[in-house]
Amino acid sequence: MPAIGTSFRLGELAVRFGCELAGDPEIRVGRVAGLDGGPDAVGFLVNPALLDELAKARLGAVILERRHAAGCPVPALIHANPHATFARVAALLHPSAPVQAGVHPSAVVHPSARVASDAEVGALAVVDAGAVVGPRCSVGPQCFVGPGVVLGADTRLVQRVSVTAGARLGERCLVHPGAVIGADGFGNAREATRWVKVPQLGGVAIGDDVEIGANTTIDRGALGDTCIEDGVRLDNQIQVGHNVHIGAHTAIAACTGIAGSTRIGARCMIGGGTGIGGQIRIGDDIVIAGFGMVTRSITAPGMYSSVLPVEEVRLWRRIVARIKRLDVLATRVRKLENAAGIDTGHDNDI
Amino acid sequence: MPAIGTSFRLGELAVRFGCELAGDPEIRVGRVAGLDGGPDAVGFLVNPALLDELAKARLGAVILERRHAAGCPVPALIHANPHATFARVAALLHPSAPVQAGVHPSAVVHPSARVASDAEVGALAVVDAGAVVGPRCSVGPQCFVGPGVVLGADTRLVQRVSVTAGARLGERCLVHPGAVIGADGFGNAREATRWVKVPQLGGVAIGDDVEIGANTTIDRGALGDTCIEDGVRLDNQIQVGHNVHIGAHTAIAACTGIAGSTRIGARCMIGGGTGIGGQIRIGDDIVIAGFGMVTRSITAPGMYSSVLPVEEVRLWRRIVARIKRLDVLATRVRKLENAAGIDTGHDNDI
Amino acid sequence: MPAIGTSFRLGELAVRFGCELAGDPEIRVGRVAGLDGGPDAVGFLVNPALLDELAKARLGAVILERRHAAGCPVPALIHANPHATFARVAALLHPSAPVQAGVHPSAVVHPSARVASDAEVGALAVVDAGAVVGPRCSVGPQCFVGPGVVLGADTRLVQRVSVTAGARLGERCLVHPGAVIGADGFGNAREATRWVKVPQLGGVAIGDDVEIGANTTIDRGALGDTCIEDGVRLDNQIQVGHNVHIGAHTAIAACTGIAGSTRIGARCMIGGGTGIGGQIRIGDDIVIAGFGMVTRSITAPGMYSSVLPVEEVRLWRRIVARIKRLDVLATRVRKLENAAGIDTGHDNDI
Repeated sequence: MPAIGTSFRLGELAVRFGCELAGDPEIRVGRVAGLDGGPDAVGFLVNPALLDELAKARLGAVILERRHAAGCPVPALIHANPHATFARVAALLHPSAPVQAGVHPSAVVHPSARVASDAEVGALAVVDAGAVVGPRCSVGPQCFVGPGVVLGADTRLVQRVSVTAGARLGERCLVHPGAVIGADGFGNAREATRWVKVPQLGGVAIGDDVEIGANTTIDRGALGDTCIEDGVRLDNQIQVGHNVHIGAHTAIAACTGIAGSTRIGARCMIGGGTGIGGQIRIGDDIVIAGFGMVTRSITAPGMYSSVLPVEEVRLWRRIVARIKRLDVLATRVRKLENAAGIDTGHDNDI
Repeated sequence: MPAIGTSFRLGELAVRFGCELAGDPEIRVGRVAGLDGGPDAVGFLVNPALLDELAKARLGAVILERRHAAGCPVPALIHANPHATFARVAALLHPSAPVQAGVHPSAVVHPSARVASDAEVGALAVVDAGAVVGPRCSVGPQCFVGPGVVLGADTRLVQRVSVTAGARLGERCLVHPGAVIGADGFGNAREATRWVKVPQLGGVAIGDDVEIGANTTIDRGALGDTCIEDGVRLDNQIQVGHNVHIGAHTAIAACTGIAGSTRIGARCMIGGGTGIGGQIRIGDDIVIAGFGMVTRSITAPGMYSSVLPVEEVRLWRRIVARIKRLDVLATRVRKLENAAGIDTGHDNDI
Repeated sequence: MPAIGTSFRLGELAVRFGCELAGDPEIRVGRVAGLDGGPDAVGFLVNPALLDELAKARLGAVILERRHAAGCPVPALIHANPHATFARVAALLHPSAPVQAGVHPSAVVHPSARVASDAEVGALAVVDAGAVVGPRCSVGPQCFVGPGVVLGADTRLVQRVSVTAGARLGERCLVHPGAVIGADGFGNAREATRWVKVPQLGGVAIGDDVEIGANTTIDRGALGDTCIEDGVRLDNQIQVGHNVHIGAHTAIAACTGIAGSTRIGARCMIGGGTGIGGQIRIGDDIVIAGFGMVTRSITAPGMYSSVLPVEEVRLWRRIVARIKRLDVLATRVRKLENAAGIDTGHDNDI
């Protein structure tokens, strides 16, 4: 359970976050919780399946939509977007640790690097030649800020993050441990039976308010930059190939791989474990269900899938055998049609 | 080849590990090996396909089941579970390097951290405020033990492991390089066309005897904890989302991703490259074949699969084209049935 | 954009790289660029789809095949392999930063390690007992070179690379941040309802000219070594299980997982997101399309696939429902054949 921070009056929360309050404005809450939390906590409800649970709630307050407020047994903060409001209340009640301005004595900072006086450089971090660490940035323990890298104001590298190849991050970015930004892309030219490495010379340009998950890798461009626009959310263990472009406010779930030079539009949502081929385009507002395989460009907004859910293994093996003999089955149907004098025209052609 | 350690008499091994010995108890062995090993080595046989190889063995001894002992040309340590017995013999003959009690002078240990006097903290490791490093623990070089983290007795972080968010590990855990335990989960609330970060406030609770592979990531819970129970084995590059619960003695192979709030039972075996969706339940004793896609809850014990093995590419393209026209094929069959006066009832409905 | 390095005369480039020059040999170029680069840059053309763009080029020179040289508006360096030639020109014009011989004062080097006098050990790196860092090697910042590890001449660990378990790397290898070489393989013996760890005692043997991507993991062998032969190219986030053998000059794209004891031949090309099961063999010159699932051995050279491209989600759900009812469809076809008196023999059997 999170520690209890400063408490706030419900009346103050309602004003601050634009909620209608149904209940006593003098009640104080100091933390967020699930619907099973106690009288010092604020919860939220979005899923109607949890209305039964709400009926038993003993929370200090619950954030919900008006349509769910009737019969709520505790004070309600009514808002059209309970999830986002909950997120804001949580950030208020449980603020991130403040940046501790200064460079830890065990960190290694190159004389030509510029670290803002109110920025933090943690234990055993490296800030290399010509790097710029902006105001109120936090470079956490064991991070690496490579030559020429620029971190915008209020950006936080949580711990053991590597940023190199002169990558530029905007303001208020948040990067989690193990992420690698700016490693070489996979560029190889075939020559007879061996490979010649194609030098990777581009950079990485990351906008404002981007979050990058643990052990995610974003390669530098081959010539131009790999680009991640404002507000993009990348979960853990995502691979972003060289010269990929990800549009603003797109969110991508864990374990997704994006091959080189692919361009993804704005406001897309891409489920976990998705594979996206190289040099294709995905338009704006596209949703890819998890485990999708994207091998061609997609332009029409909408939701796309290629997931094959698991089945009991003997049944599945029969299905696979049938799939692999679909050609035979189609031929048998064609024979039946011929025998029956049915003309299906082009239907039989592949 | 592993270095040769102290040697042991076969008679001693038989007693220590509950084996029946067929052969001279005075023979000494000092290492483990495959069936092609020499007279100073112990091997094991489980796979009957290797019986031919066994017939040529020159090992000091071989561990096998009684049914394979006939005709064995070398001394045999007979046990109902040769693989587990081999594992134990290997651990005896090739012990891990002992913990070197003490804190390396280059490590950074916060004054408020508690490090057991017989624990080891390696070069350039960080042990942050309020962390507890238990008896005989090893915090390897360049590891990070974040604020409030607790490591139970005899737990080893091999090298460059990150543990944060107040995560608690039990006793005798083993964590490999690059693993990240306690990074933020992927929590985002949609607001018009952008995302509001949902603060991740929970922790990670890991039981005893858990092994966690290289570059595996285990996110902290959003509110409550992400839980890994006793004896779980996680291979490399696995992603465990926030608030996932993995039951005791479940083993998960590499490159598997598990989305948030999913609950996996005890004693499951999950093949590599599997994707498991969020907020679902997998019961006890479930086996998922590699590359499975799990999008719904599974309760019945058994084995499940959705793997589609590769085919020669031209054949595969024909199969995919057939798959995408299955609706057409079904309609053609329906027409034939109508023409033949066959009533298949609901069979045709989807 | 990459910085401009030393410039070269086109005549000199033509001689050095075996090109025919169509144009003024005195023109100087100092960098590489895409077809939209300026007169100080060299570009290349392979893809005929870009011939329109070539017609507008203002480059100092373009590298291309003879068949594309007609009508080229700028000087042409004509070569049968423009991509490989471009790679070599790029390496000449944009050389890697030279190795800075010496050990950074913040690095921790064990007294028993041997570091060549012209090698570099970066800030906060660890070189452990008995390790050997060869001539002109670069061990980048925060890297870990574990006990007994051997790095051949001119090998570079870019930054925060972990090499352990006595792994041996050949000459001119390049390893990117976050890679882990030599972690334990996933060896577990089942015993009733729990797991006994099988000690991992083998090493990792890596040839010359191998490149290993960011956050890729290569496990040590269980008994013998995991082997990566000369010239192999591994992209980011690849998992190589224990005792895998990868043949010379094979290239593997990101997010591919290879389970234990599998043997992959020489000159293979394996697309991203591919899963390869354990204990199988893939011959020489095999191509696996991205997202493939390889569960059986493949010996015939050629290209293999099992990719299922995404479809609009409602259509896809119909397809999945059809797939799961293929047995029923086949039975219906069988009934029709019986009614029509058609004998398909074994065609109906699975």
